[in-house]
Amino acid sequence: MRLVTYRATAEAEARLGALVGAGTTLVLDLARFGAARGVELPSRMLDLIDLGPGAIATITALIAEQGEQFPLGTALPLANVRLLAPIPRPRKNVFGIGLNYTEHVAESARSLDTSADLPRQPVIFSKPPTSVIGPDEPIRHDAAITRQLDWEVELAAIIGTTARRVRREDALAHVFGYTVCIDMSARDCRRAGQWIYSKGQDTYCPMGPVVVTADEIPDPQTLDLWLTVNGVEKQRSNTAYMLFKVDELVADISQGITLEPGDIIATGTPAGVGAGRDPQEWVWPGDTIVACVEGIGTLRHPVVAA
Amino acid sequence: MRLVTYRATAEAEARLGALVGAGTTLVLDLARFGAARGVELPSRMLDLIDLGPGAIATITALIAEQGEQFPLGTALPLANVRLLAPIPRPRKNVFGIGLNYTEHVAESARSLDTSADLPRQPVIFSKPPTSVIGPDEPIRHDAAITRQLDWEVELAAIIGTTARRVRREDALAHVFGYTVCIDMSARDCRRAGQWIYSKGQDTYCPMGPVVVTADEIPDPQTLDLWLTVNGVEKQRSNTAYMLFKVDELVADISQGITLEPGDIIATGTPAGVGAGRDPQEWVWPGDTIVACVEGIGTLRHPVVAA
Repeated sequence: MRLVTYRATAEAEARLGALVGAGTTLVLDLARFGAARGVELPSRMLDLIDLGPGAIATITALIAEQGEQFPLGTALPLANVRLLAPIPRPRKNVFGIGLNYTEHVAESARSLDTSADLPRQPVIFSKPPTSVIGPDEPIRHDAAITRQLDWEVELAAIIGTTARRVRREDALAHVFGYTVCIDMSARDCRRAGQWIYSKGQDTYCPMGPVVVTADEIPDPQTLDLWLTVNGVEKQRSNTAYMLFKVDELVADISQGITLEPGDIIATGTPAGVGAGRDPQEWVWPGDTIVACVEGIGTLRHPVVAA
Repeated sequence: MRLVTYRATAEAEARLGALVGAGTTLVLDLARFGAARGVELPSRMLDLIDLGPGAIATITALIAEQGEQFPLGTALPLANVRLLAPIPRPRKNVFGIGLNYTEHVAESARSLDTSADLPRQPVIFSKPPTSVIGPDEPIRHDAAITRQLDWEVELAAIIGTTARRVRREDALAHVFGYTVCIDMSARDCRRAGQWIYSKGQDTYCPMGPVVVTADEIPDPQTLDLWLTVNGVEKQRSNTAYMLFKVDELVADISQGITLEPGDIIATGTPAGVGAGRDPQEWVWPGDTIVACVEGIGTLRHPVVAA
């Protein structure tokens, strides 16, 4: 299933929908659809995740039974709604993974202050919930704080069930689904090597446009991902090249930190960031960043002056 | 006011209380007290913070009017209740500040991989909500993950009103109150220099026992703080020696990251951590850590095998 969080109008509340219809051009409001079918369905993504893995199968079946004709008022044209970040307000900071593609480790060692050695364990940092924005929302560039604002396209995994000290072979069963994330990074805002201020500022975590549930992505290590700035391709790789795969990341973090339903892991970026280029490149107000993960979707964000 | 989050019995829900009575030996349940007085008062700390700064003055006056005799069932002996972390579930990761006392910068440079230069800007990291525990709860020591578990006593500031790009001179007006925090740190769990895994594991953020509201601590830079392990003093200093004061921390973080009501900033630890000793010292199952900030309170935590 392809799930979204949407507003029907600018003032409407954020609600949970599923993309349905030919070409997935309709947003089916799950709570309203459930009401029309006599089934209580949640109106928020986190509430759906909390229902556990069985909910997706139940809802998928309910939609399949329905056919192509949905009860009046339950399905809106996708073109008419505003999509938000799938989880507009995560329950804890988004986990980010640094240095998780070989060539990005190399370019970072050349241009930043990181080691050229491949990390032996996942390198974890975090991005606060206040950094999350949805599709098309502007990324704020504050020239008083940074002159080195950089891009990083990433696959993000969303946890479905509490994971505490899970084994690698059990880890993917704890994943609810996947979305796209841009890990915006102000390279000149690292402090004593810590990354939260460089990566955690407001608007530095665009996410969406959809969550594809894990049943539709049995192997998350086969997905192309790419990013353009002003239409020029800057990054292109495949999740096959991650150093630590999604299952390893979930298992590893869960050894010390309990992962909870709705927690998000941004799994790292491939080579091609601005810091690694010669000469280095940064984004500025007026630029547009487009990021895509194959089979999930595309994010498009203008950069604006703060 | 001295505020607590408490359970009346092991199974009871977590509720908001204020310490009252001679020697503050009673926990006044604010929601129940309000009901008895015909005023709606919140039953959770975050809900109280959300009411804004005026709420504290109103409640203080209401309690003062009441005198020493409280309506039946509204005030329980402190000795009979279980205190929890004041904010058992923060809305985003707790902000931690590294290298914020001069002598701790020096000991860290000797024993860890940090610079001997004083940081020119606050060094920020984070501890997930899942790391927070309340008074007397065990700190878990997982020998499979760490053999270098260390202590750090800290003053923690709790944000009261949204702070976005505030100036230093306005910053303290955004602080709701203060509590005590132990920033447990597994020194061998730093990864490529990032601290979230070394400092963010489950149980690594003991907090409490009370929140003292900011009106009672007009200057947070005058407080003694100390820590003992098994009764032996390891740290003793005063918040006067912070490199970046509370107002600077709030102002600085808020330039890039919106601080929200209930957000917590652990303001850094003075010298005397285990990593800085010769020979180095760590805590192990069976040890007891006691941490105190003058005028706020004392935390006591056993270390247990995970």
